Amino acid sequence: MALHDTYTLTVSCADQSGLIAAITGCIAGNGGNILNLAQHTATDIGMFFCRISFSASGGNPGAEFSEEEFKKHFARVAETYSLDWHIYNNAIKKRVAVLVSKTSHCLYEILLKHADGDLDCDIPVIISNHPDLAHIATSFHIPFYQVDPNKGKAAYEADLNGILEEYNIDLVTLARYMQVLSGDFCRKWKNRVINIHHGFLPAFQGAKPYHQAWKKGVKIIGATGHFATEDLDQGPIIFQDVIRVADTQSIEQFIDLGKDVERRVFVEAIRRYLAHAIFLHEGRTFVIE
Amino acid sequence: MALHDTYTLTVSCADQSGLIAAITGCIAGNGGNILNLAQHTATDIGMFFCRISFSASGGNPGAEFSEEEFKKHFARVAETYSLDWHIYNNAIKKRVAVLVSKTSHCLYEILLKHADGDLDCDIPVIISNHPDLAHIATSFHIPFYQVDPNKGKAAYEADLNGILEEYNIDLVTLARYMQVLSGDFCRKWKNRVINIHHGFLPAFQGAKPYHQAWKKGVKIIGATGHFATEDLDQGPIIFQDVIRVADTQSIEQFIDLGKDVERRVFVEAIRRYLAHAIFLHEGRTFVIE
Amino acid sequence: MALHDTYTLTVSCADQSGLIAAITGCIAGNGGNILNLAQHTATDIGMFFCRISFSASGGNPGAEFSEEEFKKHFARVAETYSLDWHIYNNAIKKRVAVLVSKTSHCLYEILLKHADGDLDCDIPVIISNHPDLAHIATSFHIPFYQVDPNKGKAAYEADLNGILEEYNIDLVTLARYMQVLSGDFCRKWKNRVINIHHGFLPAFQGAKPYHQAWKKGVKIIGATGHFATEDLDQGPIIFQDVIRVADTQSIEQFIDLGKDVERRVFVEAIRRYLAHAIFLHEGRTFVIE
Amino acid sequence: MALHDTYTLTVSCADQSGLIAAITGCIAGNGGNILNLAQHTATDIGMFFCRISFSASGGNPGAEFSEEEFKKHFARVAETYSLDWHIYNNAIKKRVAVLVSKTSHCLYEILLKHADGDLDCDIPVIISNHPDLAHIATSFHIPFYQVDPNKGKAAYEADLNGILEEYNIDLVTLARYMQVLSGDFCRKWKNRVINIHHGFLPAFQGAKPYHQAWKKGVKIIGATGHFATEDLDQGPIIFQDVIRVADTQSIEQFIDLGKDVERRVFVEAIRRYLAHAIFLHEGRTFVIE
Repeated sequence: MALHDTYTLTVSCADQSGLIAAITGCIAGNGGNILNLAQHTATDIGMFFCRISFSASGGNPGAEFSEEEFKKHFARVAETYSLDWHIYNNAIKKRVAVLVSKTSHCLYEILLKHADGDLDCDIPVIISNHPDLAHIATSFHIPFYQVDPNKGKAAYEADLNGILEEYNIDLVTLARYMQVLSGDFCRKWKNRVINIHHGFLPAFQGAKPYHQAWKKGVKIIGATGHFATEDLDQGPIIFQDVIRVADTQSIEQFIDLGKDVERRVFVEAIRRYLAHAIFLHEGRTFVIE
Repeated sequence: MALHDTYTLTVSCADQSGLIAAITGCIAGNGGNILNLAQHTATDIGMFFCRISFSASGGNPGAEFSEEEFKKHFARVAETYSLDWHIYNNAIKKRVAVLVSKTSHCLYEILLKHADGDLDCDIPVIISNHPDLAHIATSFHIPFYQVDPNKGKAAYEADLNGILEEYNIDLVTLARYMQVLSGDFCRKWKNRVINIHHGFLPAFQGAKPYHQAWKKGVKIIGATGHFATEDLDQGPIIFQDVIRVADTQSIEQFIDLGKDVERRVFVEAIRRYLAHAIFLHEGRTFVIE
Repeated sequence: MALHDTYTLTVSCADQSGLIAAITGCIAGNGGNILNLAQHTATDIGMFFCRISFSASGGNPGAEFSEEEFKKHFARVAETYSLDWHIYNNAIKKRVAVLVSKTSHCLYEILLKHADGDLDCDIPVIISNHPDLAHIATSFHIPFYQVDPNKGKAAYEADLNGILEEYNIDLVTLARYMQVLSGDFCRKWKNRVINIHHGFLPAFQGAKPYHQAWKKGVKIIGATGHFATEDLDQGPIIFQDVIRVADTQSIEQFIDLGKDVERRVFVEAIRRYLAHAIFLHEGRTFVIE
Repeated sequence: MALHDTYTLTVSCADQSGLIAAITGCIAGNGGNILNLAQHTATDIGMFFCRISFSASGGNPGAEFSEEEFKKHFARVAETYSLDWHIYNNAIKKRVAVLVSKTSHCLYEILLKHADGDLDCDIPVIISNHPDLAHIATSFHIPFYQVDPNKGKAAYEADLNGILEEYNIDLVTLARYMQVLSGDFCRKWKNRVINIHHGFLPAFQGAKPYHQAWKKGVKIIGATGHFATEDLDQGPIIFQDVIRVADTQSIEQFIDLGKDVERRVFVEAIRRYLAHAIFLHEGRTFVIE
């Protein structure tokens, strides 16, 4: 949960000695009080990833935290160690758009979790290529826009971009949104579009993954939350979950069972994004929790 | 568990009305007492699968069960309904060969489960293309044969077949056996060779599946027990299991974690075979438990 | 799913030979066509449980199924074998009331699954001791009644019973309903009230189970769907599920995580009731799926 | 895995600001290079727990790490913040004794994981109150001692203590060891005896937990790894796992299924101990991974 006056700092870099002491020393030296530190060195590739949450108050007495000052000081640390870093003021909530088509279970899930105070973001707008789910947006008091895909991909995505910009959207989430996005769109929103695929990637890419799974006779089915890229169902994976199925179940039952997995994967992928827990390196994620 | 004087009957056929009453009626009429009945109609393909365990004693008083008589009577039912059927005398244990290479966890698992009375079969022989695991065979008092793959595939498999025939083997199990079997061998032993693949098929076929999985950044890894076919890692799937992994884990840890999944999948696939629970139809299994 | 012209027959009795043939023979003899048969013999207690779904059409040509005739014929079979049996016409949907207080996740779950065609029942009424969730009932177009617990237990439950009778309710479901029901009420609705307890019973009975679990330092938490009885949290268990927790999580997080388990357990317990899959024997259930 | 020249430092204390910077600063200042840091603030009780692995080489150039010097310097930090701390030289392996009775699955599990290089400890001795499992010790080349419980609890435990001391044992593990230990023994070995209980504690304490579970009709069974205390089955919980069971399974099957859970819980509890991941506070553990 976002706490007033707290910040989250993410750092990734080539592994080297002294990193944690340098980073935490700079925070302490600027009057920050570390609340939580998660860190991982991926020895297979020699990379260091770190996420630190700290409070601007309650640190060393005498030191008063200033975001501007900290950034200046930390930039020097970053230069020394060639860090890739970001700092987030946790009081500023991310603005998340939900794109839907006709299926409601992922939309309901994000709205219910959000209403329950369980997702730390704003959801200012819902966009669809179909009118079917407008009533859900209405009952949650969120503006609903229907965009017409028949006007051609370019015009359609121009409309989409217009709405996303109007609402200052940080993250686009595809809640079983059945419309392929263009390479241009994916590049413009790179690493800021989370899609849910109703199959356990990299198996069962493309259309009708539950039909594929049933036909193959797999004993476990799943869903995958990933960043959308130009290459369909190939983007970096953020979260996955599975459920055991029986050969006594029909394709129809696979689809029904899959819904619970999909909605969970959808929200858990978004939650990790909002927690700044996702590090990207060479086409895969490192989710550090 | 095999019970003295009990039989298991398996039936598969196109779905039609009256099947269960006809089948169970024939058993009862011959003095059999049904202990367990598992049945499934796969509506997606219009097929009926059924497995019945029954006792030859304890049925209707007056009727004495005779296997020969039953087969004669049931053949008529089978003709009427075009049934594909098999009957197994549960007192006759299946003879299972274990083929290994250098890794011991799947071999230990099957031997320990067997010693625990938890796998209803005989394990009369262990065969390997390496000498490394001979001591395990010794400590479990099971003959161990080392076959030399360097003599050429044909000669090697002739040796293999010789041993399997000498020991009257019903089922060949590949306990992380690192040697590709020829098409001839797979055809000869069709649906009687169970392999364990250390990946969640159909994803991550071929070599080094844990490396593939790590590189792709999947969040769940698995293993697959399947019948070996000419097409590598494409045979009908019998059992699968998975385990959640973290991005903070190395390839080495994936391999270690995977072992527990592999050994479980290996034994569970074999268990389903021994229970006559696997029905094959058009390249996939229907496991009816 | 309820199918037109199909029936479900449940049978429980002391184990004895010839049961399945006698039961299925009677169905076939009356022109019924068996769609699905699930059966279990609990050898630990010598009991036989069986559930059969059959179609009234499509059976043996010439035989036309009549529910009245079947009941007459089956009563004779039942007498011979001392069967406890029930037959359900699947075209007649069960009428389910949902009782709630202030927490919405279980209520939403049952309403969304029902709207999705995933729960085969009618939900004609929602009743609460608080006004908070009225808007959800409204948005799903279901009558909502607020009953005042301050008028005293007897008067309160008289009101409750009045509403349940007015709506011809078959099953009462407690969707995190925070009001203890009297012994009289539990006896009147015996085996027809399903409660969800937010703990893994029999551990953590009573109030604040998540606090109890956190304090004890358990590594897995759960929820339990059970029939409500006079003895609080002691009724026969229908379904349970769990989730792994970390010691780095707070009580607050336990409560949040638990919600997903609770809603799933709630709906799965109800689903088993609607499928006539629950057999009761000496204070425990046998759920035969 | 233990790495040459690496140390693990554990710290627990009342939560306060500046802790991480002070701790990591002292390590860096002494020439240590942090490899891994795991930390948790339990806000429910205001406690801070931290585990840091660091290398004595590869730190800041010029600074050469000395264990003695570090301890002196860190003692000052510890005094300032009232830290409870321990430092472990990872080159020194913990010495683990395994106590068994007649059941072999937990014993095999620890021996196989150890042989696989998957448990970072020495296992110098196996002790039993029965002769049955001596052959397993032999085949793994580990001394086996049989101690006679019939000589009376005091004499028996004197023998036990004699062996444990002779082998310089750090941790006593009870691998389904069926003998209640005295309060004296538990106090002497406080927080150094890990037991496996074959039930999901705190439910199903005491004898025959699978029978209890079956009779209650629970749908999930489990096992619990915990520190042994005077109060039977009440010690701090280290690790738990569960498995779903069906009402179609017998008590015998519960026992068989439970074995896989028990052996896994047993080894995972020990693994966490060896990793110095277990923090104890007011009768519960905080396992920080």
